[in-house]
Amino acid sequence: MPDGNPASPHLEGRIARAALDRARDRAAAALGVAASEIVFTASGTEAVNLALLGAGRRNAGGVATWAAEHQAVLGACRRLQLDGRDLHVLPVDARAQNSVGLPESVNLVSTSVANNEVGTLQPRPTVPGSLLHLDACQGPQWLEIDLTDVHFAAFSGHKLGAGSGGLLFVRDGVLLEPLQYGGPQERGRRAGLEDVRSATAIAVALEICVRERRERAAAVTPLAAMLSEALVAAGGQLTGGGTRLPNHASAIFEGIRGEDLLLALDLAGVAASSGSACASGSLDPSHVLLAMGFSLEQALCSLRLTCGYETTLEEVERAAEIVVSVVGRLARTPA
Amino acid sequence: MPDGNPASPHLEGRIARAALDRARDRAAAALGVAASEIVFTASGTEAVNLALLGAGRRNAGGVATWAAEHQAVLGACRRLQLDGRDLHVLPVDARAQNSVGLPESVNLVSTSVANNEVGTLQPRPTVPGSLLHLDACQGPQWLEIDLTDVHFAAFSGHKLGAGSGGLLFVRDGVLLEPLQYGGPQERGRRAGLEDVRSATAIAVALEICVRERRERAAAVTPLAAMLSEALVAAGGQLTGGGTRLPNHASAIFEGIRGEDLLLALDLAGVAASSGSACASGSLDPSHVLLAMGFSLEQALCSLRLTCGYETTLEEVERAAEIVVSVVGRLARTPA
Repeated sequence: MPDGNPASPHLEGRIARAALDRARDRAAAALGVAASEIVFTASGTEAVNLALLGAGRRNAGGVATWAAEHQAVLGACRRLQLDGRDLHVLPVDARAQNSVGLPESVNLVSTSVANNEVGTLQPRPTVPGSLLHLDACQGPQWLEIDLTDVHFAAFSGHKLGAGSGGLLFVRDGVLLEPLQYGGPQERGRRAGLEDVRSATAIAVALEICVRERRERAAAVTPLAAMLSEALVAAGGQLTGGGTRLPNHASAIFEGIRGEDLLLALDLAGVAASSGSACASGSLDPSHVLLAMGFSLEQALCSLRLTCGYETTLEEVERAAEIVVSVVGRLARTPA
Repeated sequence: MPDGNPASPHLEGRIARAALDRARDRAAAALGVAASEIVFTASGTEAVNLALLGAGRRNAGGVATWAAEHQAVLGACRRLQLDGRDLHVLPVDARAQNSVGLPESVNLVSTSVANNEVGTLQPRPTVPGSLLHLDACQGPQWLEIDLTDVHFAAFSGHKLGAGSGGLLFVRDGVLLEPLQYGGPQERGRRAGLEDVRSATAIAVALEICVRERRERAAAVTPLAAMLSEALVAAGGQLTGGGTRLPNHASAIFEGIRGEDLLLALDLAGVAASSGSACASGSLDPSHVLLAMGFSLEQALCSLRLTCGYETTLEEVERAAEIVVSVVGRLARTPA
């Protein structure tokens, strides 16, 4: 991978520029959009913020999103609220599915492909006259991402196994205010040295998604179902539901702290999550589970297991056994 | 290098977290500051913007910087001006050295270690009662960076040979508004997945600076002097001057477009620059040379040659010959 600065006119720079252009072309082709509609960022979080703050700071009117969206979405929307915009944080149902009604006078709406903690697929809101941001950080590995009527869509390299780095689709003609100023990189939408490695990695990852997701989704569905069965067998109450990402299994284990459960599973070789990793480290309960109507106590007792492209049947069988055994042990241990 | 998410509680995540913590400790030690004062960013440009927009959006009062500072500094300051802040863009002298007087009522000042196009070292302004940002993207390879009375200092991985990635020193207790919102990463100052590779690379690069810069600066000074002599021998008018970075040589060649010169040098194997790479690609004349008092015509005819840690005497001798020969050929070519 070239080490030059893509903005430099000499040979090293031109090699880096060519690699960056190629990454942009490949990412655009994978998403079915124009190369000019791709902005590479340092993370999914940055992509989400660039869309919401970038559009929100150029337009007046209300902003709407849903209570179980990712922290980056809620954080950027709250920033706009502090700047004086009307913010509507709309409810989700008990499966974390976004409600469909939207207030009038909203002109920036942020939804997602799927909830990032419980995997529930989201309906696409109809928002005539409004800009629509789609948080597509979850989903591209398994589902085709429909960008019809979408003005911005944020992607995360990490969620695609492509390391750090993110990508924002910005529909041609839609203006945004940059988060950072300086050189003319990314057509003025994101100043600063481009990360050619991360851009290339996310472009290749998106290509792999296009090529493999249908087959992989079919293969992973029974594996995730086995994990869900194990969660139930261990005494868990499944969370999410309805149509959801095919690789997700999640549950609540009342009386067992998510933290303790993760630690015990980790010691046994199972890498699980409780809330979002972006919220881990804090001891806050999952805002997603709270939005779904669970109590504070319940929201602290969640477990999420996901499969990737590489996950095997043997691994899932073993994880299922471990979950049942670990939960059984923790349930017998006085807190 | 670990691939986990440092915010994840499982083993992969903890390995990534440990690597990130270690990078932070090493960077802090190299700068002589506390680990809590380090924020890793995706570029020097992001670090500059985080300091200036981050501090500027939390405080009222005037903002001051100088006309030959980097585009990122000027861009962030102009954004603050659009937000209603008084902006003072102060003059530089014919060597690009910042003027020393500051208007009263200023409470955010941005200076730099050295000018990024002509290498002139900058005096440190005295700004009682004001926050001081130091653009330290140029300089750490050759000079100790004095952070006394500095509240923010921006570093660029790229300028240190550490690839993309940046770092912002934020003095403990100084608050800033983040550029992006979401998870609690970087103590809430920069949400989004951390790039452990880039953080490690910049930390190691800063360590190498501390260890090697004194000796390397002594070694590079005569090499850069040879390049300056070659620029004069080729008919150039040297730019910058006074005390400057020891590895810089720059000149104006009236009547020869910088672009043509770069292209011809590049074909001959010399990677040179005209203005800042962050401004290349545009056909704008260098804002630095304009600020120094050069005409529009002159500002389009600049050439910058720099040496790195690896540059050898033989390379410099050969580059010097090529410069004289290429400029001679271009000067004979009718435009």
